[in-house]
Amino acid sequence: MCRWLAYSGEPLKPAVLILDAQHSLVAQSLNSPLGVETVNGDGFGFGWYPEGSAAGSVPALFHSIEPAWHDENLRELTNNIASPLFFGHVRAAAGPPIQQTNCHPFRYENWLFMHNGFLDGFSLMKRDLVLAVDESLFPLIHGTTDSEVMFYLAITFGLADDPIGAMAKTVQFIEQTGEAKGVHFPMQGTLALSDGATLWAFRYSTAHRTRSLFHSVEIPALREMYPDAERLQVFGDKAKVVVSEPLNDVPGAFVEVPESTVAILTDDGYSHQPFGTPAD
Amino acid sequence: MCRWLAYSGEPLKPAVLILDAQHSLVAQSLNSPLGVETVNGDGFGFGWYPEGSAAGSVPALFHSIEPAWHDENLRELTNNIASPLFFGHVRAAAGPPIQQTNCHPFRYENWLFMHNGFLDGFSLMKRDLVLAVDESLFPLIHGTTDSEVMFYLAITFGLADDPIGAMAKTVQFIEQTGEAKGVHFPMQGTLALSDGATLWAFRYSTAHRTRSLFHSVEIPALREMYPDAERLQVFGDKAKVVVSEPLNDVPGAFVEVPESTVAILTDDGYSHQPFGTPAD
Amino acid sequence: MCRWLAYSGEPLKPAVLILDAQHSLVAQSLNSPLGVETVNGDGFGFGWYPEGSAAGSVPALFHSIEPAWHDENLRELTNNIASPLFFGHVRAAAGPPIQQTNCHPFRYENWLFMHNGFLDGFSLMKRDLVLAVDESLFPLIHGTTDSEVMFYLAITFGLADDPIGAMAKTVQFIEQTGEAKGVHFPMQGTLALSDGATLWAFRYSTAHRTRSLFHSVEIPALREMYPDAERLQVFGDKAKVVVSEPLNDVPGAFVEVPESTVAILTDDGYSHQPFGTPAD
Amino acid sequence: MCRWLAYSGEPLKPAVLILDAQHSLVAQSLNSPLGVETVNGDGFGFGWYPEGSAAGSVPALFHSIEPAWHDENLRELTNNIASPLFFGHVRAAAGPPIQQTNCHPFRYENWLFMHNGFLDGFSLMKRDLVLAVDESLFPLIHGTTDSEVMFYLAITFGLADDPIGAMAKTVQFIEQTGEAKGVHFPMQGTLALSDGATLWAFRYSTAHRTRSLFHSVEIPALREMYPDAERLQVFGDKAKVVVSEPLNDVPGAFVEVPESTVAILTDDGYSHQPFGTPAD
Repeated sequence: MCRWLAYSGEPLKPAVLILDAQHSLVAQSLNSPLGVETVNGDGFGFGWYPEGSAAGSVPALFHSIEPAWHDENLRELTNNIASPLFFGHVRAAAGPPIQQTNCHPFRYENWLFMHNGFLDGFSLMKRDLVLAVDESLFPLIHGTTDSEVMFYLAITFGLADDPIGAMAKTVQFIEQTGEAKGVHFPMQGTLALSDGATLWAFRYSTAHRTRSLFHSVEIPALREMYPDAERLQVFGDKAKVVVSEPLNDVPGAFVEVPESTVAILTDDGYSHQPFGTPAD
Repeated sequence: MCRWLAYSGEPLKPAVLILDAQHSLVAQSLNSPLGVETVNGDGFGFGWYPEGSAAGSVPALFHSIEPAWHDENLRELTNNIASPLFFGHVRAAAGPPIQQTNCHPFRYENWLFMHNGFLDGFSLMKRDLVLAVDESLFPLIHGTTDSEVMFYLAITFGLADDPIGAMAKTVQFIEQTGEAKGVHFPMQGTLALSDGATLWAFRYSTAHRTRSLFHSVEIPALREMYPDAERLQVFGDKAKVVVSEPLNDVPGAFVEVPESTVAILTDDGYSHQPFGTPAD
Repeated sequence: MCRWLAYSGEPLKPAVLILDAQHSLVAQSLNSPLGVETVNGDGFGFGWYPEGSAAGSVPALFHSIEPAWHDENLRELTNNIASPLFFGHVRAAAGPPIQQTNCHPFRYENWLFMHNGFLDGFSLMKRDLVLAVDESLFPLIHGTTDSEVMFYLAITFGLADDPIGAMAKTVQFIEQTGEAKGVHFPMQGTLALSDGATLWAFRYSTAHRTRSLFHSVEIPALREMYPDAERLQVFGDKAKVVVSEPLNDVPGAFVEVPESTVAILTDDGYSHQPFGTPAD
Repeated sequence: MCRWLAYSGEPLKPAVLILDAQHSLVAQSLNSPLGVETVNGDGFGFGWYPEGSAAGSVPALFHSIEPAWHDENLRELTNNIASPLFFGHVRAAAGPPIQQTNCHPFRYENWLFMHNGFLDGFSLMKRDLVLAVDESLFPLIHGTTDSEVMFYLAITFGLADDPIGAMAKTVQFIEQTGEAKGVHFPMQGTLALSDGATLWAFRYSTAHRTRSLFHSVEIPALREMYPDAERLQVFGDKAKVVVSEPLNDVPGAFVEVPESTVAILTDDGYSHQPFGTPAD
């Protein structure tokens, strides 16, 4: 069980959320109040769309197998760039080895993807899942996690044209594969996905008991609630954060994403849609 | 605040204590009930006198900056050697960077040394402490921890001839240096020291409030208490373990080392002596 | 193109060959006279059967992504154990990322395997090759190299019962897969294989132009040739070394393994057999 | 003996020089035609003043102990930022261990410093040199290299007010210390120094036989020489590069910095001054 954070909005110095917030991602890596494992010390990943990059640009990645809380390069990097859309992920390995190729987020062309959770029975299903990945994509799988296979399945199933539909087909395929192998609740997790413009955040598990997922409310609304809050001044009006658990204890600042739901966040605001397998 | 473990006795596969015990050192690295920091993920060190090596032999070292709980090399190594005397240490960095040269135990000729604790005000005192190290030893300091400086001070003060006396002079010098710099309680910690035959374990702090230290009782006595305990069979009659906190919950298996005391463990048994500055 | 070394004989301190020989494996990692790439700095692996371990025992592994020439743990380890059979491998990565799971040797039960060379067109063939691995073995593939896939194909094809035959079937399957994908010369390399007792060393490539492979002559014969050679005294009469290139410039000390040949080394001596696809 | 590169000019994507040039720094890390060691695989460092940062800003650092040629994070970072002034350094360790704190460049407030070369007899001189560092600066020395000590000596001797004078005093102090210890030629190296605006490049050794140092000619002049050179188009008119050895084989593109000379590069051009100890 890992923790992740995704930001979209005006270009922001990522350290503000990754390192400096009350319950920042790095703080959560050492002590995560709502997580199953309290320590997430098995690798870190950070992906960002550089400030000023054109639509459809390939995002940049930083993957490290040092614990996030003492990674000097992470500190330097996230304090010295600005980005309008970035992902951060701390890993608590549930099996696959700790190596840079197993660090989230994963990237394909202009897409970023990350996952908190796991595929139950992955070692039983892995061969069938990997076989379903398009042959041309197969050599691009560099690591050994369930999450990366899930991403390449979604690309195979049409992510570029219909992200929500492709993700739903992916979940459906995983659940069918699990059923065939006697795995009752194969899918578990919260997922973040972006093409550089829109940010999708999914909360879904086969057992309908997914770990927590939250996103921030609109900043202007938050400013009205807390007109004197200095720490809000660093954020622009479009700033949005999606997180495994709230970054602070400010009442009203975060909205929970319900079970079996996808939250869609753009510069114009956010909306929620039911999410599940197509047959639901 | 780190955790450590030292073993002396019949040659033993180190994994038995490092990995497999109920509250093994690696288990403590993730969750240390009695420690100040619950996570010790900032490097691991293991030092061992190889089985069959002659008296006065140089021990071997393994230092890693990966968290101990996922270090495959540590698992392989400690399962495939046997040693009559070994030290293991998990680090929770309190400042100096995470690098192999800052991992305990430290080695000088046939001596091993490790430390759980810290020198308060070390950055104020460091220059004076380092200056007091014998000029010929100075180039041998490879890392940047307070612990390594303490070790080279003890060597400077005659460790080879009088280990307890040299350690007392070291503590005294640190306390004098602290006083001159306005540091009231500079020394804090438990220390393990060995020449390959005897094992010394010190518990001392200037404030006389040192973190915990325990060692096992004599195995034959323990066998009498628990005649049916299968897990005792792996240990020979001379087996002794010194630890920051007990490795199991078996009542009577571990004795606490009192404050301001040095425990001396040899193949013939153990004894306790008061320990403090010479002026005490 | 990597370099490797395998030793079989009386228990030996591995550092003698890994670090100390005139053209030791680590020396070759920095400057390999006969290699295609002169630098092999992309990870190191060492596998050993511990001294005194029973027949059929699982060997131990040490994998590191630090360059071998400055790896302190490698130096400590290979100077402080003895082993009757060990493998060492320095990697020059030809694509798959530098991570411990891509370091040779690979292990399955009591078997060790390593490879110097590559599968040409691996990204084209990978899916078909991986699919041919037995479903029960599939989850054991932890890295992303061509070499590891080759090893699991050989296990699938009956390595435990007929090592040479299984390796021949593996090569044949690779060549058939290559042909189907338009890859003319898919197989290239020298391979080392052991069950803990016998050591097999293969030299084979589809194009019949395999990189070099040598093994030492019988030590008693070498002693007769060089009665005054002090450095031979460290070796017992059964000592045998197989290497990508000779470890010294002593004339007569190393025999070249011919193209399309497997050398079989046991405590009783060595023999050569033609090796190729079963149809050859 | 290491290799380094410093750039000053219009904001540039560092990968252009670090990774993509004909003899880029990373290419030199594997094979350095003019270097003493041909392999520089013992750590990498990159320091940059972020685009748009104010005068006097603290630069950012990236230090890695992976060989530069396979460091994915380095590739991602240098392709996704732009900087008007950056330093890159590949290390071939001559003693001090490979760890991030020993990677160049070193930073103090708004200053960056790096060094190719070594202090001969450093282990003899280290204690005296370290003692001469200002007591307030002493705790800031995080690594164990001669180069970092040299930097803190220069800061102690007034770097902020008179960079060239402070560096001359540093060299003089090193030479006096060497003389007292019987070291005849203690200083050897090329040094790069910047405050974020000016770039100083020193070539000096006690024996007056310093390893090579070059900088590029003015780009407008180069454009006149090669009006059709497409690869010049990436550079602005103020672009300047200082390097251990030329980045390409274009005749006339690089000027050698003479022995015992400091080159001073600003947006207005460059000049050379004799450099040596004050008594010269």
